[in-house]
Amino acid sequence: MTKKVAIGVDIGGTNTAIGIVDPEGNVMVKDNIPTPSHGDIDKYISDLALAIDELMKSVKLLNKDLEFPGIGIGAPNGNYYSGTIEYAPNLSFRGVVRLVELLRNHFPKMEAMALTNDANAAALGEMIYGGAKGMKNFVMYTLGTGVGSGLIVNGDLVYGSDGFAGECGHTILIPDGRRCGCGALGHLEAYCSAPGMKRTAFELLAQYNATDSLLASKSFNELDSKMIYEAAVEGDKIALEVFEKTGAWLGQGLADTVHYLSPEAIFLFGGPTAAGDYIFKPTKEHMEKHLLPIYKDKVPILPSKLKAGDAAIVGASALVWKELGK
Amino acid sequence: MTKKVAIGVDIGGTNTAIGIVDPEGNVMVKDNIPTPSHGDIDKYISDLALAIDELMKSVKLLNKDLEFPGIGIGAPNGNYYSGTIEYAPNLSFRGVVRLVELLRNHFPKMEAMALTNDANAAALGEMIYGGAKGMKNFVMYTLGTGVGSGLIVNGDLVYGSDGFAGECGHTILIPDGRRCGCGALGHLEAYCSAPGMKRTAFELLAQYNATDSLLASKSFNELDSKMIYEAAVEGDKIALEVFEKTGAWLGQGLADTVHYLSPEAIFLFGGPTAAGDYIFKPTKEHMEKHLLPIYKDKVPILPSKLKAGDAAIVGASALVWKELGK
Repeated sequence: MTKKVAIGVDIGGTNTAIGIVDPEGNVMVKDNIPTPSHGDIDKYISDLALAIDELMKSVKLLNKDLEFPGIGIGAPNGNYYSGTIEYAPNLSFRGVVRLVELLRNHFPKMEAMALTNDANAAALGEMIYGGAKGMKNFVMYTLGTGVGSGLIVNGDLVYGSDGFAGECGHTILIPDGRRCGCGALGHLEAYCSAPGMKRTAFELLAQYNATDSLLASKSFNELDSKMIYEAAVEGDKIALEVFEKTGAWLGQGLADTVHYLSPEAIFLFGGPTAAGDYIFKPTKEHMEKHLLPIYKDKVPILPSKLKAGDAAIVGASALVWKELGK
Repeated sequence: MTKKVAIGVDIGGTNTAIGIVDPEGNVMVKDNIPTPSHGDIDKYISDLALAIDELMKSVKLLNKDLEFPGIGIGAPNGNYYSGTIEYAPNLSFRGVVRLVELLRNHFPKMEAMALTNDANAAALGEMIYGGAKGMKNFVMYTLGTGVGSGLIVNGDLVYGSDGFAGECGHTILIPDGRRCGCGALGHLEAYCSAPGMKRTAFELLAQYNATDSLLASKSFNELDSKMIYEAAVEGDKIALEVFEKTGAWLGQGLADTVHYLSPEAIFLFGGPTAAGDYIFKPTKEHMEKHLLPIYKDKVPILPSKLKAGDAAIVGASALVWKELGK
């Protein structure tokens, strides 16, 4: 009997991860190719197609009855409607790249081929394989170098009029506040991303002149959110306050999200969420504080159930099932 | 030949407006009954049903071939999913009122009967009859005593998991800022509603000690947004700055809305929008300033095309066509 499996591709700044994912969300085989700096998109698409072909062959050796109905792709600035990557600052390909069209030339028989950004892919992954199974309205925040978000309304991703909806990391948390990576001031991403936590730690070290903190021996370029977590576990006051403040800021942002969309749940994904209660507890507490009475105690903040290492591939592959299910 | 027309009911704090609306959005006949302060819901529903019956009879005299497939109702804290009004602070009915169920007892043969809040109804009205015809993704802000919002995504209203989505007036614009009517601090509503404009005028009068302003002779309880508009037309500096600041605040909020939903357009409805360019121009300018490059110059801010006097009835009636079209 044939078994359908989905191909997921995650295009990052330096690396492209490819995997074949079974309907339960397990990665059966995976591979990596460099995301090139040479900017030659045709060369890159050929390399990508070759890598996908080889993965399909290798997994067919395990089970010759597998079928591959589609490829889902997550990429920065990936546009679902047009299948293009548009002006992605961290990729070497300039302007608008017709990614789906180019890849389709190599796989003309695939039933489904679709592209979106990585946070949207993560949200779909959570809905198809993860903790949001059966939910029709929820939100996924991905906390990492930046803060991404994927919004699910009435069982579908919110793409908006142009394919680019769901940039909640770039909403204004503190007017005229910290400078965000995008250049604007006061965005949520500048406070609640992993680098945002580092910035908070440095502000607090400066404020308290905290020479006795475990974080005081690290340079700005050394410190990362994992070290802050480890220091918090040791009881370091600065590190503990970083989590408290990050939770306060994130909670404020999530309250706004609830007031917009009244989701069934909010999922958090990414490095900083490994700190568990250190981040979830203050976030929940401060979100609740900001909610209108009609929303209070209704919206859980949950850790993503996607496995950290494979989440990007798995999320991208979920696009295939979503397309086939239409 | 029979012609279908929709019944729209708008339940306000002191007054309930009822109208029969043709498919082009024109009110054919309308009536008012008091929204009672006695809290007796059964009595109120009987009165409402009687008023609806009489309106149907009166319009049948004009055209005996009219059909009435449904009733759409807009009400504060109206919940589409459950057909209930829940804990509405400005109504005398306590707790959860099963409005649709109670009214349906009087009209068992109606095909469609649905309830939502007034801002959602306005958004549907704009989509069915107004400036948003053919749009699948847009946002409606209603500026009045408060600030309401209705979000349309993929051609449907966003109700969220519990029916209460779209309270964007209660998102945080200025952390720890002005106290909002809901009791929280810094909400958009506290800055961009009609009373918000009055508060801004009083802040500016105080800041500049502006004894020569046209607004300086008005008490806090006298001043309204229409007076501020009239003073702005006369070139009053305080009044002009009120519009500039209101536009800056609203523009900040709308930029967040674009980052969430990437709508095709944003519609503004309500008293303060009568000021035209005085409010639209600074709002647009400041929204654009806050947008990520991918959204810039894409999202027009448009005045609602619903007629001010009838908008609430017309919006509520749009629920009927939306239900029938499902």
